[in-house]
Amino acid sequence: MTIETAEARYDIVAIGNAIVDVIAQADDAFLEEEQLAKGSMTLIDAARAEDLYRDMGTAREISGGSGANTLAGASTLGRQCALVAQVADDQLGEVFAHDIRATGIDFDVAPLGKEPPTARCLILVTPDAQRTMNTFLGASQFLPASSVDADLIASGAILYLEGYLWDAEQPKAAMALGIDLAKQNGRKVAFTLSDGFCVDRHRDEFAGLISDGKIDILFSNEAEIMSLCETDDFDAAVAQTAAQVEILVVTRSEKGAIAAHGGKIYSVAAEPVEKIIDTTGAGDLFAAGFLSGYCEKRSMEDCLTIGAIAAAEVISHYGARPEANLRELVKARLG
Amino acid sequence: MTIETAEARYDIVAIGNAIVDVIAQADDAFLEEEQLAKGSMTLIDAARAEDLYRDMGTAREISGGSGANTLAGASTLGRQCALVAQVADDQLGEVFAHDIRATGIDFDVAPLGKEPPTARCLILVTPDAQRTMNTFLGASQFLPASSVDADLIASGAILYLEGYLWDAEQPKAAMALGIDLAKQNGRKVAFTLSDGFCVDRHRDEFAGLISDGKIDILFSNEAEIMSLCETDDFDAAVAQTAAQVEILVVTRSEKGAIAAHGGKIYSVAAEPVEKIIDTTGAGDLFAAGFLSGYCEKRSMEDCLTIGAIAAAEVISHYGARPEANLRELVKARLG
Repeated sequence: MTIETAEARYDIVAIGNAIVDVIAQADDAFLEEEQLAKGSMTLIDAARAEDLYRDMGTAREISGGSGANTLAGASTLGRQCALVAQVADDQLGEVFAHDIRATGIDFDVAPLGKEPPTARCLILVTPDAQRTMNTFLGASQFLPASSVDADLIASGAILYLEGYLWDAEQPKAAMALGIDLAKQNGRKVAFTLSDGFCVDRHRDEFAGLISDGKIDILFSNEAEIMSLCETDDFDAAVAQTAAQVEILVVTRSEKGAIAAHGGKIYSVAAEPVEKIIDTTGAGDLFAAGFLSGYCEKRSMEDCLTIGAIAAAEVISHYGARPEANLRELVKARLG
Repeated sequence: MTIETAEARYDIVAIGNAIVDVIAQADDAFLEEEQLAKGSMTLIDAARAEDLYRDMGTAREISGGSGANTLAGASTLGRQCALVAQVADDQLGEVFAHDIRATGIDFDVAPLGKEPPTARCLILVTPDAQRTMNTFLGASQFLPASSVDADLIASGAILYLEGYLWDAEQPKAAMALGIDLAKQNGRKVAFTLSDGFCVDRHRDEFAGLISDGKIDILFSNEAEIMSLCETDDFDAAVAQTAAQVEILVVTRSEKGAIAAHGGKIYSVAAEPVEKIIDTTGAGDLFAAGFLSGYCEKRSMEDCLTIGAIAAAEVISHYGARPEANLRELVKARLG
């Protein structure tokens, strides 16, 4: 069956968490003391969020949320984007909404009440620039399926979803609805596996989405895809997964990234970075760059390169949103 | 009359604004459009704060407040500090209180209610690294005199006050009470003139404090001291003011800084900075370094050098609170 697709108003519509990052420096001893697994994301409740915040150092607050970061990057690269995410009616909600809109992204989901508050992610950045994330989901986990507007999904060339959002029932239902709407309208569905522990929690469901053909473009890192396939063999995991999606993108930190598409593997080296400060958002911005190139119908190599450029920029400073003009960086490289 | 002074529990007690900075990049055209005077601080009301925030770009939130920044620097340099400042019972108030306490500073003023909200300063940083500040004072202007605890002031070797706080009646009364208590207990009073427009608004009162011998250590920049003395002659302004205080410190941006003390002028060059990113907090951190050296009974030259080191660190990144270990930077230079 061929679906007649209308001209898309948006390049990317994302359903994601609405989170403000609270970013502090920490040493390895602090992670140990707090029993935190370096490099991972842990979900925490309000009481734990309060305790951990009290114990951590001075912080800066910068809007985050995986899918929102990806849209911020894509928007900076010139793409038209819209976000579906849930904030509360509080100051952090205002901060999140302001930063999204100031990036040129449409964001029309009304805040919930005052409680639960807007989600925050307590991020500890160690001297090796690794980030360890502790997320209090707050209002974000109550994103209702009713926030997913059929016209909005139909008007986006790509629907982008974050695996992180699979933990709560309401956003999961919202994303499932989004996938159905996208498919009904002949739109592409992109999905990120988000985090190794997240894949652990939802392996069967993620694998089901993939095997059911619901995911067109899958983003992953090495740990996530090996966890998904329950194997230590990276190449086998790539081969197995690539066979089930149109495009599989796997980021490999300092080893660069690969894309599997049409039976071929494309690869790119990591971009050089003068000094890596904070790796928060590296994967999100890689996805932003890749998808931006995809929307421009660029080659796989170019899509990977734009991803690598965007990721390199975001790890050169604190926070997961781009600070430099990514469009100029890409233009300087690829024209 | 010689006042018997007890051993001080605190090196510095400050009465200051409790502000969270909202820092965004902006170009000169935006400043022009918004009719903002580059490099200055403008007081704005809630409606203007809302409008300006809507129009400005994506931001990062970092605790600020002039006196609070100075204490954060002094605390990082190893001084014992306490802050008297007013937040509201809201998320930005929690952020401010957390960051102050996480720096090791005692802060015991209870939040006011929900409204007015915690103060914020919308800071626009232009590509030349200059900051243009727009402050909505919110709860901060309602710091009551009752928050100034006599024992606290008596227990601080130095009482530090910011001129910015002179705009609202209640904090002004709180500072006046603080000065009296400090003097009664044989403590030093340090004061910063804060901003040229601030000096314009309160010239007679500031001059009165100085001529009445209420200020022991005065911090200023070139524009402020010339405005105070209503002269274009920098040397004359320094000579006139230095005669009325124990120590006069004048920062001169890239020209370094001077201290006038005991009939002598001491000077120091600006510290080299690889790349100046955001000049917010330069004066605050200079004061932090200088006072920290003063508390350690260091020479005037060393006090100036520590001030210059702290200022150089804070202008090398966004935000007005130190990110590096200032103590180590000073140790590497002065031992």
